[in-house]
This record gives sequence, C-alpha cells and structure tokens, in this order.
Amino acid sequence: MTERLPAGSCIGILGGGQLGRMLSVAAARLGYRCHIYEPGAAPAGHVAEAVTTADYSENAALKTFAEGVDVITYEFENVPTEALDILEAMRPIRPNRRALATSQDRMLEKQFLEGLGLAVAPWAAVDSGWDLSRALEKIGAPSILKTRRFGYDGKGQVRITDLNEASLALAEIQNAPAVLEGFVEFSHEVSVIAARGLDGAVACYDPGENVHKDGILHTTTVPARLTSAQRTDAVLLAGKILNALDYVGVMGVELFVTPRGLLVNEFAPRVHNSGHWTQNGCAVDQFEQHIRAITGWPLGPGTRHSDVRMLNLIGDDVDMAPTLAQHPQTAVHLYGKAEARPGRKMGHVNEVLGPKS
Amino acid sequence: MTERLPAGSCIGILGGGQLGRMLSVAAARLGYRCHIYEPGAAPAGHVAEAVTTADYSENAALKTFAEGVDVITYEFENVPTEALDILEAMRPIRPNRRALATSQDRMLEKQFLEGLGLAVAPWAAVDSGWDLSRALEKIGAPSILKTRRFGYDGKGQVRITDLNEASLALAEIQNAPAVLEGFVEFSHEVSVIAARGLDGAVACYDPGENVHKDGILHTTTVPARLTSAQRTDAVLLAGKILNALDYVGVMGVELFVTPRGLLVNEFAPRVHNSGHWTQNGCAVDQFEQHIRAITGWPLGPGTRHSDVRMLNLIGDDVDMAPTLAQHPQTAVHLYGKAEARPGRKMGHVNEVLGPKS
Repeated sequence: MTERLPAGSCIGILGGGQLGRMLSVAAARLGYRCHIYEPGAAPAGHVAEAVTTADYSENAALKTFAEGVDVITYEFENVPTEALDILEAMRPIRPNRRALATSQDRMLEKQFLEGLGLAVAPWAAVDSGWDLSRALEKIGAPSILKTRRFGYDGKGQVRITDLNEASLALAEIQNAPAVLEGFVEFSHEVSVIAARGLDGAVACYDPGENVHKDGILHTTTVPARLTSAQRTDAVLLAGKILNALDYVGVMGVELFVTPRGLLVNEFAPRVHNSGHWTQNGCAVDQFEQHIRAITGWPLGPGTRHSDVRMLNLIGDDVDMAPTLAQHPQTAVHLYGKAEARPGRKMGHVNEVLGPKS
Repeated sequence: MTERLPAGSCIGILGGGQLGRMLSVAAARLGYRCHIYEPGAAPAGHVAEAVTTADYSENAALKTFAEGVDVITYEFENVPTEALDILEAMRPIRPNRRALATSQDRMLEKQFLEGLGLAVAPWAAVDSGWDLSRALEKIGAPSILKTRRFGYDGKGQVRITDLNEASLALAEIQNAPAVLEGFVEFSHEVSVIAARGLDGAVACYDPGENVHKDGILHTTTVPARLTSAQRTDAVLLAGKILNALDYVGVMGVELFVTPRGLLVNEFAPRVHNSGHWTQNGCAVDQFEQHIRAITGWPLGPGTRHSDVRMLNLIGDDVDMAPTLAQHPQTAVHLYGKAEARPGRKMGHVNEVLGPKS
C-alpha cells in the first residue's frame, strides 16, 4: 500500500503554461491545491491557488516555494539542474530526475531506448563538423540535425537535404551538441499516453494518431489507424519505458508506424499535447491521471467512452473558437494567453466523434 | 448579434462554494479569469484568480470587487438586496434580479409559475397562526410548512402530519413568513437543466431523475424514466420560465412526475446539483453552458454523448472517493472543503453508464 497525499495538500508545479493550467484544474477535482512556479507569464495562475513569479536561478524563491508544497511536478522539461537540486533536497519530485535527465538530452534518450531493445531512427552524435561529416557518411541525406537539448515544436532542428549544407546547418544550431537523425519512411505518427502510479501500476490510453503542420501538432484522432498487434506493441513498449525509469506520472511516447514495426521518436516526461483528447473521451483524463499517479490515488483504467478528434488552435486559429463551439459535441479549451502570436498554442477543441469504436 | 465578452475579461462570482469553483474552471476553459466574492471559506478560490473575503454588507469591498470585473453572476441566491443594488449600478448581473427575487421567495415563485399556467402543488401563504389553520383546512395534513426565504436542502421546512402540530410547526420556523404545501402523490422527481443565452436562444439538457436522502440530493441518473411526451413537456415548461424572466444563464427546474402530469416543485436561478452529471456526459457541461450564456458565446446544444449516474458524496461519504475512483469510467469531483461535517456536500462522482441510450 502506498500512502495517499491527504486532501488539501499542495502540489507544486514547475511551469505555468497550458499544461500546468490543466494539471491544476485536475488537482482541484481531487481536492488538492496548486502552487505554480514560473519565471514568465503564467496562465496556469488563473486557476491555481498561488503563483511564484521568479527565475529558476533565484534560490530563495525556490526554497520558499518548496517549503509551501508537499510534492513537486513539472509541465516543462528544461528546468536547470541546480534548481532541481535545491527542490529535490526539500520535497519529492515526480516524475523522478532520471526521467527528466534522459528525455532532456536526445543522445541519452536514444541510448536509453536502444538499451531497452526498442527501435529508433538511425542516428549519430554530432559535437563537431568532423562528427557531422562522419555521421552524414553513415546516415546520408536527407537527414535532420537536432540539438541534444532545448528543442521542441520543431525548434532546434535543421533539415539537411544535401551534403554541402552541413556546415551551414551546424552554424544554424550555433554548434550546439547535436544528433543527426536519418529520415524514416513512416506511414503515420501515433502516440501513447502512458501512466505509472506510485505503487508501480501501469495504465495506457489507446494510441492517438497525430498530424503535424509546420512542425507543430495539428490534430490527434483516437482511435489511430493501427492493427491490434501494433496497438499491443505500442502499449507494451510504453510500459517498458515507464518501468525502466521507475517512473511516476504520465508520459507521452511518440511513435512512427513503419513497414518494419514501430519506431520510438521521443518521449516527454509529462502530460502531452497529443493526450488532450482524453479530456472529452475518458472519465479520467491525462491531467487527472498524472495527479492520481503522483499523489498515490489509484490510476484510472485508460479506457475511453468516446472516439475523439483534437484540433490545436495555433496563433489566430483561436478566432475560430466561437464558431467551432457551435458544432454539436465540440468542447473548447482555451489557455488564457494574452496575445495570439504565430506558432503559439492558444487552445484546442475536442470533437466527440461518437461512442468508442 | 450580441457582443461576446473578450477573452481575458474577468467574471465576478458571488459565492465561493463548489458551484463557484466549477464555474471558475469552466470560465477558464473559455479564456476568462474569475474573481470570487465570499464572506466565508471559499474553496472556489483554489481555482480562481482572485478572492475577496468580505461580508455582503461591506460596501467598499463590493465596489472594489465590481470595479475589477466585467460581468457578475452568482452561485448563491440569498445575496442581500442592498448588496445587489450596489453591484448592479456598476456592472451587469446575469441572471437578472427578477429571476433572483422570484426564486428567493417561495410565494412569489408559486404565483409566478401559476401565472404562466404551470401546475404546482396546492399551497397557501402563511403569515400567522390564523393563516395556518385556514391553510390546513384547505390543504389538509400531511402537509409541509416551508419558510418563504432562505430554505435549501430540507432546511426551513417542517412536516405537519396532524392538525395539532400546527402551532409547534410555526414555532419551529420562528413564525417566519411561510407557505403551506400539500403533499403531492408523485412517482419520482426529475429536473431540467435549462439555459438561455444573451441572444435569447434556449437549450436544455435531457431531464435527470433525482433521488433524495435525508432531504439532500443523493443521485441523479440520466436518462430519467419519462415518456417522450413528458420529456417534451419538461423541456417546454423550462423554456417558458426562462423566456418569461428574460433569463440569461443556466437554471435548474425541479419537477414532480404525477399521474396527472408534471408539477413544478421549484427552480434555482443558477447551476444545479442535479446537473453535475453533464460534466461527464456532454461536451459542454452546465458550468460552461452558464459561462457561455452570460458572456455571449453560442450555447452548447444540450445533447449528451453518454448516459451518466451522479452520486453525491455527503459528509464522510467522501472517504469512499478513492475506492469509487477505481471503478472504470468513474470521475471524481471533490470540492476542496477542509472538514467533512454531516450533511455537508464534499464532492460527487459521475459514473459513465454507456453511450447515450
């Protein structure tokens, strides 16, 4: 038996964006309060009990924050190590530091996944122009150069279509430590939203099928086009990753569907954009599942009652929300961000397509 | 065309209990911020941007509150008239004052309903012992004496089973202005959660069937046992009430199902406990529907994707939440209240029973 965090306890969330916002609401449903730590604007603060606006380098702010909470989680992976050291000395951080460290670094992530016997795209580490030319010899072009750290939504990535572009690509990522990835022939991308509880129980939602636009997730549709064997594979490999990391919380695992099986693209040690459909397809959504996991509640089963299509509202797309809201069975989720900049995630809508197929 | 309240605007909510809490979360989903006004403890404050803790008699606090918000709504009907006068002079109050005044007073409510040609239980106004004996002559016993104001969840009510108990009953309600209601032979109680938008559009959810325990709502199950003619009647009469009041927002209308048709028990000019099932049965729940109405968004259609049974967690029932949470397709909603006193609503669970039948 694991101890359940008592009702009324406070959950500290690192990062105050839309994921923190939806986590805070889910925590409230289970009787918890939330405290957000965010250096910038924090839309999560509209639905949290407290917000600390401070940089991750402000040790006093970090300590005061940790003192006031019972457990710490995050919606944002790139929290500096020094800040995590201070916080971890005072309160448990869930998911754990190893999950964070592994997923923060594309090289460690790929090594970890290969160590579990999971298939990934062909890759090579690139720390110099010399490395890059050797990597290109091995992997060929077209391929894609990705910084090891701080990449998301297509940022920190350069496509190399011709070997002559190599040095330009390296300059574009400012010679940051990187990996070169070969292009993979895949028919579509799916992702598994998987959870592991404090007691080691694992529960996965059915995989969703993702469509990207300009490097940013555009839609996720559940169910994904998968054979039942692929569906089982997807869930088993997600479970393998969770167990290997002694993970507690929700994780998003992105997979490529190829003729030779499923390849792992990457995983994120947090709730994931491709899991937003669960808000209107399941009794327990990914946000509540994460809170259940880190507080010792029993996990939800991961089963859904409805098929759903999630559509991201990027930038000015948000202006469509009132029109979309007129469609029957469409739920609107806006993030409370002040300004609709291009490429910025402003909200999403979930369309309930019908009963679980 | 009605003007939609711009994203980022602030909604003032009078009352900081569970209804205000769930309204605040729904408002955030549409990109709004909420400010709660509550004299006592405010669990709604855990998920709102701001809370004013002040009595309804503190005029300065009321004015500062009104200045900071764009529109005012309420989760609590018994706001004093003087406070409403101050607020209404500064910002729109939705639903309007007439709806509030009518529903606050059982006598006005019954007169209003009869004026619309709707059936209610036999009743008589009681302002004195003399009135009561005449009312008992007309209506007979068993019957029930209810204070005209400030009654909820079985409070302010005395059952009279024998004519000799009349003066005792009057003493028990401290001679407050009251109505005597005859007992109605009814097979079950249902309620309609109805909404009317700023543009006059009306949308109703399918009626739910309510079971009470110790005077407090215990379960609501959707669909209710009703013929299709009764279902239509229920929805039409709710629409009649909304239109007659030029109502904007969500209303709960309680109905008795009798051999001679539907009788209106009472209505509440706010989101209603018997509408909590919509959180897990519909893409747009009653809380979001209310926010859509008062901010000028298009109403949701009121259709549901799933059948649902809502179970209230009263007092120590809340201890069952983690066990209930293990059932597949069960969603837990706790209210963040500090102490589980007997009779206190601590939370509810929604069990998704299956696709809409």
